[in-house]
Amino acid sequence: MALIVQKYGGTSMGSPERIREVARRIAHYHQQGHKLIVVPSAMSGETNRLIGLAKELNPEPDGRELDVIASTGEQVSVGLLALALHKLGLKAKSYTGWQVKIQTDSAFTKARIMAIDDANIRRDLNEGFIVVVAGFQGIDENGNITTLGRGGSDTTGVALAAALKADECQIFTDVDGVYTTDPRVVPEARKLEKITFEEMFELASLGSKVLQIRSVEFAGKYKVKLRVLSSFTEFDSNDMGTLITYEEEESMEQAIISGIAFTRDEAKLTVTGVPDRPGIAYAILGPIAEANIDVDVIIQNTSVDGLTDFSFTVHRNDFNKALAILNDKVKPAVSARDVRGDNKSAKVSIVGIGMRSHAGVAAKMFECLARENVNIQMIATSEIKTSVVVDEKYMELAVRALHQAFELDKLPA
Amino acid sequence: MALIVQKYGGTSMGSPERIREVARRIAHYHQQGHKLIVVPSAMSGETNRLIGLAKELNPEPDGRELDVIASTGEQVSVGLLALALHKLGLKAKSYTGWQVKIQTDSAFTKARIMAIDDANIRRDLNEGFIVVVAGFQGIDENGNITTLGRGGSDTTGVALAAALKADECQIFTDVDGVYTTDPRVVPEARKLEKITFEEMFELASLGSKVLQIRSVEFAGKYKVKLRVLSSFTEFDSNDMGTLITYEEEESMEQAIISGIAFTRDEAKLTVTGVPDRPGIAYAILGPIAEANIDVDVIIQNTSVDGLTDFSFTVHRNDFNKALAILNDKVKPAVSARDVRGDNKSAKVSIVGIGMRSHAGVAAKMFECLARENVNIQMIATSEIKTSVVVDEKYMELAVRALHQAFELDKLPA
Repeated sequence: MALIVQKYGGTSMGSPERIREVARRIAHYHQQGHKLIVVPSAMSGETNRLIGLAKELNPEPDGRELDVIASTGEQVSVGLLALALHKLGLKAKSYTGWQVKIQTDSAFTKARIMAIDDANIRRDLNEGFIVVVAGFQGIDENGNITTLGRGGSDTTGVALAAALKADECQIFTDVDGVYTTDPRVVPEARKLEKITFEEMFELASLGSKVLQIRSVEFAGKYKVKLRVLSSFTEFDSNDMGTLITYEEEESMEQAIISGIAFTRDEAKLTVTGVPDRPGIAYAILGPIAEANIDVDVIIQNTSVDGLTDFSFTVHRNDFNKALAILNDKVKPAVSARDVRGDNKSAKVSIVGIGMRSHAGVAAKMFECLARENVNIQMIATSEIKTSVVVDEKYMELAVRALHQAFELDKLPA
Repeated sequence: MALIVQKYGGTSMGSPERIREVARRIAHYHQQGHKLIVVPSAMSGETNRLIGLAKELNPEPDGRELDVIASTGEQVSVGLLALALHKLGLKAKSYTGWQVKIQTDSAFTKARIMAIDDANIRRDLNEGFIVVVAGFQGIDENGNITTLGRGGSDTTGVALAAALKADECQIFTDVDGVYTTDPRVVPEARKLEKITFEEMFELASLGSKVLQIRSVEFAGKYKVKLRVLSSFTEFDSNDMGTLITYEEEESMEQAIISGIAFTRDEAKLTVTGVPDRPGIAYAILGPIAEANIDVDVIIQNTSVDGLTDFSFTVHRNDFNKALAILNDKVKPAVSARDVRGDNKSAKVSIVGIGMRSHAGVAAKMFECLARENVNIQMIATSEIKTSVVVDEKYMELAVRALHQAFELDKLPA
């Protein structure tokens, strides 16, 4: 018997039939004796429909009014889900954000949760109710309705779990957990039973789209156990999805590497023969930043004869713009020898908390890629990840080879 | 410069284009220097869509959850209307029922307003805002969302006008006022400039569908001036619709009759040769009431030789059911001679506050109908109305003849 917060996404709530399915799933957990707080998103498409109406009337809508409108999607969902639970003979009660109340700041359309009043929810849980709370919304100190921005229902779930000290926060989505890598690229990809927040954070920011990065950050900060589960499979009490934990437990899987992330959208730019003097990085990247281009990997080699080569990657959409800036502004300004570009790059990263304590992990990665004749164009490392930039055409080969080399298809000993 | 509450119905808010039209109309009133509180209904069809979703998930939905769901229609409307007003460069701010707050009892789906906190609205009006308040909804003492039932937005408008002592409450709808009778039956029907609440109440309950009967009752009770106007015509500051006043003003139109109402859905039932003894009315109508059949006009003639005839009308849909009850249960129980029925009846009523002080009004009605050879089947009177039941085929003839006889097409002297 545990206190569990369950969040169901928009596709899980996509139709009356899907809502009935969610209600049946909740009933299974209820029968196991758990106390449940459920956070549904708006029915899929509904938030876009509402924001579309608003923008049709005013292309630059006031944030306060936009939140009044957009928050109704989740309000409808909590009422409908409560009714579906009643139909199954269960006691259930809905709450909007202001009814809970979930106090936020006044940053309309992207508010942050400041505090949660847990009195009503605790009373209802003790009286045997399943409590259904609208995600994505809150109320500011002046009584205005606020919303938390896209993916805000994940944040609501995590915040409720933190405030009520729930045993875990379960995020139900259309995948059944976090995998060692994308199963579409590596069929042998294995679902992880557990992963740490730091690893999840690196995987999320590297392109895995399982969880909203902000809710992962939030869960890590407040030490909420997160579990990713599918709402599209038959209920199976043995299928526990993937648990994302805040601590490196003794019983934790001892894998050095937890997963392999990759992204195909990289473009690489290199300024060669640059005089190696203070301020040179800013001289090159300043004009790029001014053009609102995000830079990902940055590499500067040691200089030879006072000259160095400076490389970085940007999103492929920004490649032409960045290349023009380097040629027109940067090259003459820093007296560089040449500017080279390549928009056929991909980034492959191995992520694992075990890299902290295990030497030679990066070396093993490079050895594996060398064996497959995959040329490494750039290397970037952090405490728990190593990323390489390679020619796009070798990306899938690299991911598969690394998955095998690190034995990610096998359960850790 | 006045304080005006304006209520716009669902068809007025039916599409983004219609909402823009409403915003432009509000802007005209704003330019005239009035302080405005605007109460929009949900976009037409939206409340039905939401209740349909709810009933699909639970055919017997809990009232609390139904109100959580249904109240979102008006919440969306206030946000959209505020955005449309912003687009015209006007200061506007939306309020839900709980934000105002509009305090109600806890009778979900048909709550009654208990009190209105006017502090926020007054502050915003003084700061130059057009205040947009969600109709149809409120909050009970436990913080639950409530709704006022169908037509509840009219009630919200009237209640706000009463609480803020507004100069008048304007109900915008798809007709441009209250007419002496239905213009589809009598092309000469004239729009009334003024009418009293009592007359409006009789006209509304007799079949005119301009205003919700409950809001008329409410306006009369709190002495709120109501005005019916069209939102579908071009704005014209000279077109003042119809004013419904609570007092018989000196300057009031001096017509004896204000309007003619009619309904085609009557069915007449007669029990003949009934022994005239105490309890006979209950013996006949008791079984009808037990079957949940509403009875309208009731007539009992003076007895001759200890026997009387007892007649009443019901809605035509209930005719067969009522006839069966009379034949199977009532006739043997009261030893009646016979039971007769006629489901081709219509009811025509003349309504006017002047009937109180003018003798011979009913006689003039009967004379007019006699002249047209319209046989009167039943007569029922109240202080300010006289109703006759006639054969359905004479209904339109009767309405036209009465409209002419009472000179309703002409402005009163």
